[in-house]
Amino acid sequence: MSEDHALIRISEIFGPTIQGEGTLIGVPTVFIRAGGCDYRCSWCDTLYAVDSAFRHQWSPMAVGEIWEMVRELSGNRPILVTLSGGNPAIQPFGPLIKLGHGEGYRFAMETQGSVSADWFAELDHLVLSPKPPSSGMKTDWTAVDACLAAAGAGPDIVLKFVVFDDEDYAFARAASLRYPKLSVCLQPGNHTPPRPDEEEGCVDLSGITDRMLWLVDKTTSDGWFEARVLPQLHVILWGNRRGV
Amino acid sequence: MSEDHALIRISEIFGPTIQGEGTLIGVPTVFIRAGGCDYRCSWCDTLYAVDSAFRHQWSPMAVGEIWEMVRELSGNRPILVTLSGGNPAIQPFGPLIKLGHGEGYRFAMETQGSVSADWFAELDHLVLSPKPPSSGMKTDWTAVDACLAAAGAGPDIVLKFVVFDDEDYAFARAASLRYPKLSVCLQPGNHTPPRPDEEEGCVDLSGITDRMLWLVDKTTSDGWFEARVLPQLHVILWGNRRGV
Repeated sequence: MSEDHALIRISEIFGPTIQGEGTLIGVPTVFIRAGGCDYRCSWCDTLYAVDSAFRHQWSPMAVGEIWEMVRELSGNRPILVTLSGGNPAIQPFGPLIKLGHGEGYRFAMETQGSVSADWFAELDHLVLSPKPPSSGMKTDWTAVDACLAAAGAGPDIVLKFVVFDDEDYAFARAASLRYPKLSVCLQPGNHTPPRPDEEEGCVDLSGITDRMLWLVDKTTSDGWFEARVLPQLHVILWGNRRGV
Repeated sequence: MSEDHALIRISEIFGPTIQGEGTLIGVPTVFIRAGGCDYRCSWCDTLYAVDSAFRHQWSPMAVGEIWEMVRELSGNRPILVTLSGGNPAIQPFGPLIKLGHGEGYRFAMETQGSVSADWFAELDHLVLSPKPPSSGMKTDWTAVDACLAAAGAGPDIVLKFVVFDDEDYAFARAASLRYPKLSVCLQPGNHTPPRPDEEEGCVDLSGITDRMLWLVDKTTSDGWFEARVLPQLHVILWGNRRGV
């Protein structure tokens, strides 16, 4: 099977809605969520796209089939397409990006930085989100470096860190020193992620807001003015609901 | 009195906090709020900096005096300084921007676009926010054009529109067609602005969230994918509280 015909494992495709987090917050987008992940973060908020117990909900789809859905959702109008997961980096997204670019669409991808691929250079936006200590995962910085090398001068690159506590904050601070030229975005964690089998999850909105206030205060008190602090807007607006 | 010694009418200086709205949302910043405005929007959320009944709360301050406060608040570390109001465009901010730039600070200003000044070209970010019909104000597009001409190629320029209803949305859509090269940000209105004499105002958060959801749905359904839709994050986090 040539790369052009490789199937992509899809958990869900939905939109248009707005990007809820990171520096593209508020930008209208269609989401393509890939199924499968090489990580298993303790507080993962999309387990249904990560845990192989849910793989029966994932569909191997051809590029043309995926693209038809994106075109239908966007009414054939070019929009930002966000590749998410799971870890989208382990899927063969190159041909899809090429196809979409030909029609004026743009592409953003968010990944933890554990796996790199040549097609990163074709992206318009790359969000590298190394997972902090509270996730239970350990970052391989050589792999993050490989992602940056693969992306090269192609996409805008942003480092995004989920922060639950002081230790996570220290991790983000140290990691940002490693990449002084990259923009940094800090995001308070959602300690009430949905169970993967529930469509409408309950969130502890006041707890989430409190953590956001703590993070704003910590970052500004610390004089870390180069970092942006942004919430998960979709959680504030829609809770843990899927498909928005 | 030479321009360098002209006093600036200040309502409040506070921070560091994060920018709560527009495309710089989440960016750490110190706010300088000027007192006085040539508009009187029906839903103004900073009447204490607009209504001349509150002018006894405004202080004419020298550039050096203002800058000392900014340096103290930021711990002498360069940060984004946001000029707000009232209408900051009617104050002589040029020398302050020059001073701050010399120390590595950056400057953003938000204005309705009714008054232009040469120093707009010195800004790093200019947010032009023509007021929609629900404000009760009428936009003079010649004045907006003059603001753009004054800014020239200096700052990044974004058009930001507050949207309360369908008529406001149509206004934003039409205005954006007038300036096809400018980025557009849409922001749901706060229909529960604070009374100017209260420090901690109550907001109808669920009403504000509902209007945000309506605006996201309207914009995406309309296929207006070039517009960003962003809430007033500070209202979500802090309600109508001042000084944050």
